[in-house]
Amino acid sequence: MNKTSFITQLLQACNKTPIKPSATVYAPANIALVKYWGKRDNELNLPVTSSLSISLADKGTSTTLSVAHQAADEVFLNGEKLTAVSPFVTRLLSFLDLFRPRKDFYFRIETISTVPIAAGLASSASGFAALVLALNDWLGWALDLQSLSLLARMGSGSAARSLWHGFVMWQGGERDDGMDSFAYSLSYQWPSLRLGLLIHSTAEKHMSSRDGMIQTVQTSPLYTAWPAVVARDLSLVEQALIQQNFTQLGETAEANALTMHATALAARPCVCYSTPQTWDIVHTVWRCRAQGLEVYFTQDAGPNIKLIFLEKDEAMIRANFPTVDVVVPFIQDYQ
Amino acid sequence: MNKTSFITQLLQACNKTPIKPSATVYAPANIALVKYWGKRDNELNLPVTSSLSISLADKGTSTTLSVAHQAADEVFLNGEKLTAVSPFVTRLLSFLDLFRPRKDFYFRIETISTVPIAAGLASSASGFAALVLALNDWLGWALDLQSLSLLARMGSGSAARSLWHGFVMWQGGERDDGMDSFAYSLSYQWPSLRLGLLIHSTAEKHMSSRDGMIQTVQTSPLYTAWPAVVARDLSLVEQALIQQNFTQLGETAEANALTMHATALAARPCVCYSTPQTWDIVHTVWRCRAQGLEVYFTQDAGPNIKLIFLEKDEAMIRANFPTVDVVVPFIQDYQ
Repeated sequence: MNKTSFITQLLQACNKTPIKPSATVYAPANIALVKYWGKRDNELNLPVTSSLSISLADKGTSTTLSVAHQAADEVFLNGEKLTAVSPFVTRLLSFLDLFRPRKDFYFRIETISTVPIAAGLASSASGFAALVLALNDWLGWALDLQSLSLLARMGSGSAARSLWHGFVMWQGGERDDGMDSFAYSLSYQWPSLRLGLLIHSTAEKHMSSRDGMIQTVQTSPLYTAWPAVVARDLSLVEQALIQQNFTQLGETAEANALTMHATALAARPCVCYSTPQTWDIVHTVWRCRAQGLEVYFTQDAGPNIKLIFLEKDEAMIRANFPTVDVVVPFIQDYQ
Repeated sequence: MNKTSFITQLLQACNKTPIKPSATVYAPANIALVKYWGKRDNELNLPVTSSLSISLADKGTSTTLSVAHQAADEVFLNGEKLTAVSPFVTRLLSFLDLFRPRKDFYFRIETISTVPIAAGLASSASGFAALVLALNDWLGWALDLQSLSLLARMGSGSAARSLWHGFVMWQGGERDDGMDSFAYSLSYQWPSLRLGLLIHSTAEKHMSSRDGMIQTVQTSPLYTAWPAVVARDLSLVEQALIQQNFTQLGETAEANALTMHATALAARPCVCYSTPQTWDIVHTVWRCRAQGLEVYFTQDAGPNIKLIFLEKDEAMIRANFPTVDVVVPFIQDYQ
């Protein structure tokens, strides 16, 4: 099955043209605690395994859709008009092509992103999630979140998880047509949980997570062991969420991230997202922990490190990581 | 089988007391191009896989054995007398216990090492190899190199490979008693091959290679894939040696080292021998290569990087890595 027939099938009963002048929606970025690493279908973004994430509250993407003022799509990022040749725009528009009511229908997409683009901070996850939510609102689809998760997945795999706040599970599914590969919200709350973003590089990655995954799946001799790692880590993290066992949550998330990067390092040629600065921060995390400060890290397909800690340790975290940007995943507005 | 019965069996026909006042021998350090990582028997140092190394010519250990001047073993390292409580001495003496002619017989061991101790530079490999060669000479065992390799293996696995110059294969073997787990010299010569040692840390490792292996084998979910990696890399390296295909040699050695460290990173808790400086050097290697300088690296259970390059590029290597210590594995004296 290809993207077009997947989407045609999902949207067969849906309205195809705008029902109002514009629609504005917000979707949070998310960080996987048990990683999505490897596709079983590159066309439909079907993952090899399930994955589990936490959303980043006010770090994410706000998108407004309306009709273009001219006979061409217009894309604005943080108020700045982008040219159609940038990779960001190309990817966005080729996704929007799937939803264009007619060939000569042009979109105006205004995106405000509070996360750096392409620095392993899930900007594409919140971006495509917001886009799908905005389409649903603007075109009056009235689809449920499960269907919207399926659609968001077509833009970027991890976007399937960015439709909710809090903890989210993306079930990998088994079907070849991908209809069972969607995310859903987990009901666990953890108000004292904190995430810390450490952005030492906002440079574009030399290799996208998409390409890194493909190279790892195709060439890393260690990748065969990955699915079993995820299965075990998912059950360890879910158990940790149920029992509010922070040590188990942190240890499992950190080990899962290290294992994901280990499979990539063993690819041939090697896929390496860490810079020496990344390792400097990782060693600082380990030093802090050896000294009794319970902090863990995770890392996605980019050089930046995300800390996982508890509210009570925020002052110590700020003292040890002066540039940290603290995220409170569970607050009144984001539950 | 335990160490004592293994050695008793090997030495049953051998002389047990000195046949001359002293014996002095030299053994080179070695660097594995296809790594030894994981034991199938911790008591007998039996490896999970075979491995293939290159010896470091004049970087190694010279050891002189004689009778102690007092009623206690005496150990000198680079002219300095060591106390019996240091880990180095404890390990050395517990190995020598296996060869003590009588309970009240005391050794004087004078060791000159031209490689830093315990910085992942195979100091224990050349150390135990020299010790076994010295015992053979001093006690007049007249054993062949295959038997001496078996004995050196009992001190430190990779010591089995340090009895020769040039390329050496340690066949992992299959027998439970370890009698088929010895190294032998490979006849391939490669006079233009160069190794470059980059020692940024001579600090003792926080985790020995012995402990790192055990933790990796027992807890790394990626380790199951390692034996097949080694089998393939051994045949790729042997093919490269036969064809003098430097690109294949370098790519395979570098990928094999990265894969070894990947299995360790995925251990729980993680086994990490790299410092941020290690990664800084690795990224410099990759940058050089992207600019056309054909240099590869390998890394053992320590933070230091070893470069692999060809004679023709030595000036460029020195320009890019000012602190490099260049080793010429194949010269008149070391073939």
